[in-house]
Amino acid sequence: SGLVHIKNPHLDSMEEDILYHLDLGTKTHNLPAMFGDIKFVCVGGSPKRMRAFAQFMHKELGLAGDGEDLADICAGTDRYAMYRAGPVLSISHGMGIPSISIMLHELIKLLHHAKCRDVTIIRIGTSGGLGIRAGSVVITDTAVDSSFQPRFEQVVLDDVVVRSTELDKDLAEELLTCSKEIPDFPTLIGHTMCTYDFYEGQGRLDGALCSFSSEKKLEYLKRAYDAGVRNIEMESTAFAALCRLCGLKGGSFPRS
Amino acid sequence: SGLVHIKNPHLDSMEEDILYHLDLGTKTHNLPAMFGDIKFVCVGGSPKRMRAFAQFMHKELGLAGDGEDLADICAGTDRYAMYRAGPVLSISHGMGIPSISIMLHELIKLLHHAKCRDVTIIRIGTSGGLGIRAGSVVITDTAVDSSFQPRFEQVVLDDVVVRSTELDKDLAEELLTCSKEIPDFPTLIGHTMCTYDFYEGQGRLDGALCSFSSEKKLEYLKRAYDAGVRNIEMESTAFAALCRLCGLKGGSFPRS
Repeated sequence: SGLVHIKNPHLDSMEEDILYHLDLGTKTHNLPAMFGDIKFVCVGGSPKRMRAFAQFMHKELGLAGDGEDLADICAGTDRYAMYRAGPVLSISHGMGIPSISIMLHELIKLLHHAKCRDVTIIRIGTSGGLGIRAGSVVITDTAVDSSFQPRFEQVVLDDVVVRSTELDKDLAEELLTCSKEIPDFPTLIGHTMCTYDFYEGQGRLDGALCSFSSEKKLEYLKRAYDAGVRNIEMESTAFAALCRLCGLKGGSFPRS
Repeated sequence: SGLVHIKNPHLDSMEEDILYHLDLGTKTHNLPAMFGDIKFVCVGGSPKRMRAFAQFMHKELGLAGDGEDLADICAGTDRYAMYRAGPVLSISHGMGIPSISIMLHELIKLLHHAKCRDVTIIRIGTSGGLGIRAGSVVITDTAVDSSFQPRFEQVVLDDVVVRSTELDKDLAEELLTCSKEIPDFPTLIGHTMCTYDFYEGQGRLDGALCSFSSEKKLEYLKRAYDAGVRNIEMESTAFAALCRLCGLKGGSFPRS
């Protein structure tokens, strides 16, 4: 049907669904009217960058006006920022898995309430490249954890639930084809490693704490490269797992 | 000595330390002049709320001016916001452990470079109360994970390092004494549970996914209460572990 799947039997019996961190809700907003025609959602960490991206899309799509005065749809909260340009929604997600998870839960419910169909979601944003030319874009085929496994371990109450983190292969190929049309836009398909920590978790030697040697770091990053990892960031496993479970065609496209 | 401890032997040999996500650095800013006299750091999730808190502190401390025009010290980035009011620094940390960890790594290095002494750090912000009167403030004695254990498991490369999450007991008692001076300010000392997820991780029935029954949720939350948990949020274990390791006197003070 192309609709998103909500895997929560409790939701239907709720009289009102408040999307707390987006400052939207089913009783306060007409979500089908506001969002029913959305076909693409692009997400990234920084609110200012997602505003700039929406302005860019506004111009690319040839929409009326210069797009300079796009309103933040989530202006009532400073947790996330959301802009739209035609059928494209641009939303910030902050940094790290917990932050993107809150946004995705509420976004998926938003798309469900708005009865959106055939939505493609793409994570843009930054990452650290691994053994690739600086500035390259890595299209993620599979998001992997710090042991290079294609899984997202989610703690549900006190159980650990393991979820798959494969992304849509056709979408990855389509994005790669698009990138070839742009001159000097180095792009490749590879695995993206997702960590819970920017400093110790990514083998950085410049944090407030660092308990490993540069040799140990190099040995780890070499193993990551050999396992197919081409970049490192902090959201992709949760993004891939949630999109997959809810039937959203998901792509990840961070620049290193 | 009252100085913060940096447990990273690599840092001394670095010519420049760039605090990327705060848009500050040792070569671009005179950190001792800017921050050397800081004695208190208050952190919370929302940038707007941390601005309002700095304005409130400005007035409480009787500083010159009305405090309405406090400048965001991290204005060059939208990752975090930072304000100061006299010896008090007020910083946002976003939502979740990865987000607060990045900020704390860079804050701790900032306090180190600025040669600050005897700094107390307090997390304010929101939480969900457990079996307590709505609006109560819980002063955390110990942050616990989803198994109610006083530990923070940090993935360092592909090892898991377990760190203690006890907070300063004297500071907790001091904060409790302060709260008694304020009328109608329900406050208690208890354990704070920290989760990686707002919806499934906290037993909420209103996420996009929910694979447990209300009975299972109630049974889990009852066990949490019996283990001493009085509120739930998403940052306290990382906060407690990092403060403790770096010799910062840390308190957590979220309102339910």
